[in-house]
Amino acid sequence: MTELEGIHFMMPTPFDERGGVDEESIPALVDLAVKAGCRGVVCLGVTGEASRLTDTERRLVSERVIREVRRRLTVTIGTSATGTEMAVQRSLQAVDLGATAVMVAPAPVAKQNLDAVFGYYKAVASAVNIPIVVQDYPKETNVFMPADFIARLCQELEEVKYLKLEEPPTPPKVTAIKKLTGESLGIFGGLGGTFLYEELIRGACGTMTGFAYPEILVGVYNHVSQGEPGKAAELFYRYLPLIRYEFQEGIGLSLRKEVLKRRGLLGCARVRHPGAEVDEVTRQELYRLLDALELT
Amino acid sequence: MTELEGIHFMMPTPFDERGGVDEESIPALVDLAVKAGCRGVVCLGVTGEASRLTDTERRLVSERVIREVRRRLTVTIGTSATGTEMAVQRSLQAVDLGATAVMVAPAPVAKQNLDAVFGYYKAVASAVNIPIVVQDYPKETNVFMPADFIARLCQELEEVKYLKLEEPPTPPKVTAIKKLTGESLGIFGGLGGTFLYEELIRGACGTMTGFAYPEILVGVYNHVSQGEPGKAAELFYRYLPLIRYEFQEGIGLSLRKEVLKRRGLLGCARVRHPGAEVDEVTRQELYRLLDALELT
Amino acid sequence: MTELEGIHFMMPTPFDERGGVDEESIPALVDLAVKAGCRGVVCLGVTGEASRLTDTERRLVSERVIREVRRRLTVTIGTSATGTEMAVQRSLQAVDLGATAVMVAPAPVAKQNLDAVFGYYKAVASAVNIPIVVQDYPKETNVFMPADFIARLCQELEEVKYLKLEEPPTPPKVTAIKKLTGESLGIFGGLGGTFLYEELIRGACGTMTGFAYPEILVGVYNHVSQGEPGKAAELFYRYLPLIRYEFQEGIGLSLRKEVLKRRGLLGCARVRHPGAEVDEVTRQELYRLLDALELT
Amino acid sequence: MTELEGIHFMMPTPFDERGGVDEESIPALVDLAVKAGCRGVVCLGVTGEASRLTDTERRLVSERVIREVRRRLTVTIGTSATGTEMAVQRSLQAVDLGATAVMVAPAPVAKQNLDAVFGYYKAVASAVNIPIVVQDYPKETNVFMPADFIARLCQELEEVKYLKLEEPPTPPKVTAIKKLTGESLGIFGGLGGTFLYEELIRGACGTMTGFAYPEILVGVYNHVSQGEPGKAAELFYRYLPLIRYEFQEGIGLSLRKEVLKRRGLLGCARVRHPGAEVDEVTRQELYRLLDALELT
Repeated sequence: MTELEGIHFMMPTPFDERGGVDEESIPALVDLAVKAGCRGVVCLGVTGEASRLTDTERRLVSERVIREVRRRLTVTIGTSATGTEMAVQRSLQAVDLGATAVMVAPAPVAKQNLDAVFGYYKAVASAVNIPIVVQDYPKETNVFMPADFIARLCQELEEVKYLKLEEPPTPPKVTAIKKLTGESLGIFGGLGGTFLYEELIRGACGTMTGFAYPEILVGVYNHVSQGEPGKAAELFYRYLPLIRYEFQEGIGLSLRKEVLKRRGLLGCARVRHPGAEVDEVTRQELYRLLDALELT
Repeated sequence: MTELEGIHFMMPTPFDERGGVDEESIPALVDLAVKAGCRGVVCLGVTGEASRLTDTERRLVSERVIREVRRRLTVTIGTSATGTEMAVQRSLQAVDLGATAVMVAPAPVAKQNLDAVFGYYKAVASAVNIPIVVQDYPKETNVFMPADFIARLCQELEEVKYLKLEEPPTPPKVTAIKKLTGESLGIFGGLGGTFLYEELIRGACGTMTGFAYPEILVGVYNHVSQGEPGKAAELFYRYLPLIRYEFQEGIGLSLRKEVLKRRGLLGCARVRHPGAEVDEVTRQELYRLLDALELT
Repeated sequence: MTELEGIHFMMPTPFDERGGVDEESIPALVDLAVKAGCRGVVCLGVTGEASRLTDTERRLVSERVIREVRRRLTVTIGTSATGTEMAVQRSLQAVDLGATAVMVAPAPVAKQNLDAVFGYYKAVASAVNIPIVVQDYPKETNVFMPADFIARLCQELEEVKYLKLEEPPTPPKVTAIKKLTGESLGIFGGLGGTFLYEELIRGACGTMTGFAYPEILVGVYNHVSQGEPGKAAELFYRYLPLIRYEFQEGIGLSLRKEVLKRRGLLGCARVRHPGAEVDEVTRQELYRLLDALELT
Repeated sequence: MTELEGIHFMMPTPFDERGGVDEESIPALVDLAVKAGCRGVVCLGVTGEASRLTDTERRLVSERVIREVRRRLTVTIGTSATGTEMAVQRSLQAVDLGATAVMVAPAPVAKQNLDAVFGYYKAVASAVNIPIVVQDYPKETNVFMPADFIARLCQELEEVKYLKLEEPPTPPKVTAIKKLTGESLGIFGGLGGTFLYEELIRGACGTMTGFAYPEILVGVYNHVSQGEPGKAAELFYRYLPLIRYEFQEGIGLSLRKEVLKRRGLLGCARVRHPGAEVDEVTRQELYRLLDALELT
């Protein structure tokens, strides 16, 4: 189970009405991933609101997720940080806690400096002995990593075995990177799954995203794996209206939490401030869409 | 025909193989809009690569579009500029040429300053006597205009009668602005039509976008207008895979031009440098999607 | 000593050769501030590389600084965070540890939203009972706060008693804010002291900056306080070459640490990665400038 | 006179009270540069508010400047554009009008893409037969060009003979680039002259900036050229308070125009909207500084 592939559920961090971490909702989220057929979960990513958690809360969430997973899934822990030492420390903690892999985005910078980015990954790679998932997410980090730079990370740093690709447009970048790295780098899609079909057809090994019906993504993945792209496309397109709707800028996480709450998996849809929350009109619009798609 | 509403085709500027403006392709693009049932065309927007045209080329395109339209459609001309005097001059020229309306985005700024934005619109509004479509497109301008600021523009500047809304998420912003402006401001969607259904249901008066099958958007619009939201959703969702695909960051315009070329409406899909162009793998992916949707 | 004013030394966080926090250098830095005639110190700001410290390290630094100060100076602790709950928790911890005040910059955001910024400050203000120094530093936060918004923070939130102003150009903004807030808000300059003279003449109550010769800034402040602007200007201009040199983008912190090391106050000039460090040519250039100014 | 070096006066574009180009003030500005001992003038840069001029106005300014210069100085014309074809067209026009060189900044982009930047410069270099001054100004363009990329431009494109360096910190970048390019690339400083002394000592061949007393910069340059760095530093530091003051973010251009007006060289200090203009308090502050420095 140490090889990462397939659909990974990007876990939100559950909060209670007062804004505290609601540890007790974690088991249900893990169960969703298991029942959906996911191969792994990822915690402490952007979807996990990691940047709004204290170090103590990060540890609490990581421990509980790993405990609940009971080796049924891989557990990838986000350890991105605003400094290299901190990324190393977080990654070492993830190793200690028993994570399968760490997911690491570059430290946000005022100006593009790929040498500094390489140094950052090198420091993490030197410290840990588990796979590193490089997160390529310029919208959050303001760091643009060309395909050849990503290939260099993969070639020079043994632990860099996976990429979570979120620089749009993702389909051509999957192709460009695979041309350089072949089988040595597993590429996961992201961006809410909005291009899952194209990413898989072009050779992505799965996706890591927080879409609240991971079973649908698993279905798409399985169809492609079984050589049935037509069925994959059909399934993907059927639910695309929701995949698109959930991935709205700013309110995407709130929408996902609303769906998970409606599914009975979260007691509270709260997002930590200043994260945006959906209003009632939008919630009703979401519900109508779920109803139209016969999703409960 | 001076009231703007419905679907407006956002025209690309056709170029020939050597990069010059290909004026001779303009009639076919106008005809597409007419036959599709559009109410208007918009030229010299981001889709029209206006920022890569000289002043002479801008005039050339505007004149030819207006001439070809022959009053069958409204013609909205983009006159956004990096300075206020220039926005005024371009808008006055649009009036002279016979434009129905001008579409104006704020001058991009290093830092948010709504007083300066108001001054910019006031200068344009004082100079012209045709409707102004305020373009709210922070991704391009780095200017964020809250709902109450847009309402103020509408209330204090008589010519500000329309909004082209492209700050995601658009559906809640449609609702927020309509609550403040009622019927005094017509709100058009944008963002490639990716949220057209929700925008219309929430009271948008249409959309202005360059999606290369405007007849599909017209169909959605007509269903909503006729009180058939179910049929609108059905039609919208059927083509959503393409609407999404065409709207990919960076290569969206190139994809549209490829579609228009395949439809026989453009002789050449060229985008001006440094605009990105699609590679062959992506073109084939696009074609397969068009085939799957039985679009020719 | 609870009223903040005058020159506050913005403390760097000392690191050892291996990148760990070098707690033992803190007393010397505090002594520098005391001997220089500073009224206060500030720790855990940008100069303190707060964003590259773990929560444990933040606490360690805060405790040690407060312990060493022994009530000789005010201690302002930076508690800015990427989320509101975290800013509240950090601020409560600062209160617990005995801080005089907290300095809080808005959470960085993807898009300007002053309502969210207000909510962030309101949450902190509701939680603490010590003065809040609002840090207006758009270059770091991407949040632009107009003068009237800052006045509103001061008027509606009792704890907001101070501003650290770092939106250039600072002199006119000092005047604009003072016109709105009068004596109810104390305005500190920043930006490395590069406009200290003008800020003080326009009514700023001091500055908070990490310039490595705080005694010079104290001299300028004292001259202005004693009604001797000419002497203030003379002193300020004499050392302006260094004030300017130290404030170079990207390498400013490294330069300061080099100066403090040369002054015997830091054992090691290390900056945490990916912070930039000066090269040997630049270090020699710095030394020549210090020699020319007869600074040791 | 085709070799560029020394101090180049970056010309503002004069406007009249109604915002039109005030061609009649151009001769006095050119004379200032001649009398100051400048080797060249540069027009249509950021200081020239080029982005707020129509194509017609650009041509008008270029023609008049070249006519007034009467071969007494080199004339470098800014031809930066938001698209490659436009940069080529503007550069060809500059050649036609008799420019000595063109100054070209990369087209601003949403995301870093050095291949596209290279293509842009290659297109200009293929079109013109006069020297290209590459403008490295990331604050305006959002394009970061590492030293090795700039060296590559110089090595592969024959016309790329000069660099105007405005990525802070400039002194170490001068050294880094010179190590790669030796004498094959002339490096000019910028940034208002705030690091002129250090730039020259490290091997810059001059500066191109709009500081309103270019004779002071010429003095500094001459001292360095004559092997008198001590005298250069003394002169530079004496006027540094003003060099710094004029270079304030946002209002720098307005300040320069105020100085030029006071010097009797401009009839009107107007800056085009939405460029910021100084208020009366700031104007008086500026005047006091000029008086203190005995500048008239």
